[in-house]
Amino acid sequence: MQELRERLAEVSDLEQAAGTLQWDQQTMMPRAGAPARAEQLATLETVLHERATSSLIGTLLDRAAAEVAGEPSESDAASLVRVARRDYEKARRVPGELKAEMARSASLGQETWERARAQSDFALFRSHLERGLELKRRYVECFAGEFGCAYDALLDDFEPGTRTAEVAAVFEQLKAGLVPLIAAIAERVGTLSEEEEAASSPLHGAFPADQQRALMLGILPRLGFDPAGWRLDEAAHPFATGTPGDVRLTTRYEEDHLGMALYSGLHECGHGLYEAGVAPELARTPLGSGVSLGLHESQSRLWENVVGRSRPFCAWVLPQLRAAFPSQFAGVEVEELFRAANRVRPSLIRVEADEATYSLHVILRFELEQELIEGRLAVADLPEAWNARMRDYLGVEVPDDARGVLQDVHWSAGLFGYFPTYALGNIISLQIWERARAGLPDLDVQIERGELAPLREWLREHLYRHGRKHSPSETLRRVAGGPINVDPYLSYLGEKFSSIYELA
Amino acid sequence: MQELRERLAEVSDLEQAAGTLQWDQQTMMPRAGAPARAEQLATLETVLHERATSSLIGTLLDRAAAEVAGEPSESDAASLVRVARRDYEKARRVPGELKAEMARSASLGQETWERARAQSDFALFRSHLERGLELKRRYVECFAGEFGCAYDALLDDFEPGTRTAEVAAVFEQLKAGLVPLIAAIAERVGTLSEEEEAASSPLHGAFPADQQRALMLGILPRLGFDPAGWRLDEAAHPFATGTPGDVRLTTRYEEDHLGMALYSGLHECGHGLYEAGVAPELARTPLGSGVSLGLHESQSRLWENVVGRSRPFCAWVLPQLRAAFPSQFAGVEVEELFRAANRVRPSLIRVEADEATYSLHVILRFELEQELIEGRLAVADLPEAWNARMRDYLGVEVPDDARGVLQDVHWSAGLFGYFPTYALGNIISLQIWERARAGLPDLDVQIERGELAPLREWLREHLYRHGRKHSPSETLRRVAGGPINVDPYLSYLGEKFSSIYELA
Repeated sequence: MQELRERLAEVSDLEQAAGTLQWDQQTMMPRAGAPARAEQLATLETVLHERATSSLIGTLLDRAAAEVAGEPSESDAASLVRVARRDYEKARRVPGELKAEMARSASLGQETWERARAQSDFALFRSHLERGLELKRRYVECFAGEFGCAYDALLDDFEPGTRTAEVAAVFEQLKAGLVPLIAAIAERVGTLSEEEEAASSPLHGAFPADQQRALMLGILPRLGFDPAGWRLDEAAHPFATGTPGDVRLTTRYEEDHLGMALYSGLHECGHGLYEAGVAPELARTPLGSGVSLGLHESQSRLWENVVGRSRPFCAWVLPQLRAAFPSQFAGVEVEELFRAANRVRPSLIRVEADEATYSLHVILRFELEQELIEGRLAVADLPEAWNARMRDYLGVEVPDDARGVLQDVHWSAGLFGYFPTYALGNIISLQIWERARAGLPDLDVQIERGELAPLREWLREHLYRHGRKHSPSETLRRVAGGPINVDPYLSYLGEKFSSIYELA
Repeated sequence: MQELRERLAEVSDLEQAAGTLQWDQQTMMPRAGAPARAEQLATLETVLHERATSSLIGTLLDRAAAEVAGEPSESDAASLVRVARRDYEKARRVPGELKAEMARSASLGQETWERARAQSDFALFRSHLERGLELKRRYVECFAGEFGCAYDALLDDFEPGTRTAEVAAVFEQLKAGLVPLIAAIAERVGTLSEEEEAASSPLHGAFPADQQRALMLGILPRLGFDPAGWRLDEAAHPFATGTPGDVRLTTRYEEDHLGMALYSGLHECGHGLYEAGVAPELARTPLGSGVSLGLHESQSRLWENVVGRSRPFCAWVLPQLRAAFPSQFAGVEVEELFRAANRVRPSLIRVEADEATYSLHVILRFELEQELIEGRLAVADLPEAWNARMRDYLGVEVPDDARGVLQDVHWSAGLFGYFPTYALGNIISLQIWERARAGLPDLDVQIERGELAPLREWLREHLYRHGRKHSPSETLRRVAGGPINVDPYLSYLGEKFSSIYELA
């Protein structure tokens, strides 16, 4: 058991090293460093894969299984052996060269995508995407016989144990709830141009990036951002990474829209709180991180939306916005900020979408990904398919690829099967929120006072500290009391937007 | 040969990955990340060592030696096999656990040293230093029978092929030249207080860090700093690292002294030019970096001092200083700047020392390191020994450990045997400079115009591009025409300071 721990700790160290190099690539690395970085990450992946799949680990796992046979299945030791065994069996199915090639391609893709997006030219990106899909198909083949369909194999890496058909069923229910809600809101709102809407929102205006950054460094510590153990940087596509003691958030500053940095900052901070909250004794083990992307996203969306776009949070944050940008927020009332933070309008960009329309962006990607991986949709036809579905689901016309198919970083890094976890996270966030509310009767008042520690500590106790000890579905059962269920999320949206838009 | 190249490329990738993580630790990492980073670097070192010393590489080296037997010894292929063989034989002597422990200790030492220096408390640092020396003694034992003395084994890692006795002999000549020069200058100058001196120097005053940074980002591109392939950040102890396409310089901004950032920036840029100038075809091989620290330092000191503190460079840079800090440099003449940049005064801090006294700081460390490693000096007695020798060699009283024994980062990272290369670099810089001057008759005029590319390209052609192809002594012979020789350096100092201080 001791030797197993040491070998697994090395695997964890190498994963963290690769994570820091990926962070560096997206935040710090000079552009010309991209080819060398791709080789470094490919080699690191080769080494990592060799160590993670060595027959020594197999032998140690067998012996450790015998050692922990008498212990309760939820003990740290039994969980470690169970989870490490699953990771090991999955990793063993994939050749090291394929993993290295995927790492190299993911790293090189970053720059290709940034250039293609900057020039809004899908043609620059097309062959990289074709290559990425080809690698993914080879990856899927490694699991022949294990999954019901190709997409299941992809999904399992991000939401272990969840299958495509389950997600599709959940998304059907979600869509059935969202479409009439969006239609009802649209009917009330009528048609305002983007400019008219921006003019009436205090979150749009002139906000120098430096001051936005200072504002965020004032707000985030209330959630749990510790300057001795956290960083905040800029990235083209905000993300969070790190481990306890070294949590790294990124955000993006749009100088004409404060909402971008404010809400992406809260979002990434939610991810950071989860990683920082894993029990210290699980560090350097396979249990020492968040259990699935759906659960992870439930936390980023909970802090961004359920907390961050609530009336109590708006009441707490408004004086700080006013202090940072006096002329912009002079005379703005809490209700006005609350409405600006919750304005519903079908739009082009997923990460800027409101809560009502957001999940439709995800469903669109979920469908396109299945068609791509199964070969039913050619990469060359992707922009057209994207644009048609945006028209269909959200009624918006995509003016260019930068604001269409090129907007997200994920596919550049070979992340297929990742998007659905965003909408799963939305759904789960409300299941958890209902439980937290029940456990913290004064929650609204606490948030209004900026006392965010009680909520964070409740989440740490019930979710964060367990890391990967339990399966995602068992983790969800423990923190939210049951399997995934869209009702709390749809009720929450219905109540919030009925109050804002005075729906029947 | 092809397989050997692939295996060596992996070793090079892992070295670069570790280099970036070390850079990150000194520039970006939150403090609380230190323990986890130490584990990551230790594991990376374990993996690196395993791969670098695998018997597979030994077998491939044997086969490759046969393959290149007919090629000239200075061909890329023959050089690769020769250098890789030497690296392999050295690395095989050291157990992987010791290398990992040294990497862990070096990483942990960074934070310990920063804290000890901030509090000027040697006691906080003492046990770390004792541990580091203990590890170094175990390291030296791995080479039993190979070297004439313990210090030889340390020196060989930084200046391969050079022995302690040779360095001691060269330093004797250096000291014999420097001591009377410093005395003659002191006689002319008399005694000015530090405050009086600062008041009369345009490099002392009020310089906001942001503006210093902007100034450096204006100056460094003239040397060859390419924003698409380089970065400039801050570090407690400035250093440079990286590879072509991803060169990372650091500097330190002292808001009351522009000289710190200006000259440490030029210094680190010299290191960067060397690394960036290695021939692209040597990338990801053991030949793809600078050949020794002495040669490396010859380049940082050449750009910092021989170029940066010259009259022509002062003439070129002054208008830029004036544009950045108008009130500070209004009315300042070139000669005044030149004199300020070349003011000689025995002082406490090595990295701020003038060219005349600098090497004495190094000689002091060279002597103390030998006594420490041989056990003739106990760590507990080090501050006292440091202070006594500072009094002896430079006539200055050390007021506290922060400005004494704790000023340098090196010992925290286990870097013993490194310091002498700084003074060797001073000496070598002038040997190379004389050759460059002979090859570039218009050099002074070019520098005065800020045309630094011809010098850089001369150095690239004669030194940088060869990387580690030739041994350090052969490299020196090729670029400077002979073995190490203190005369050009002493003549240069004598002429420069005779002109400034009107010595006989």
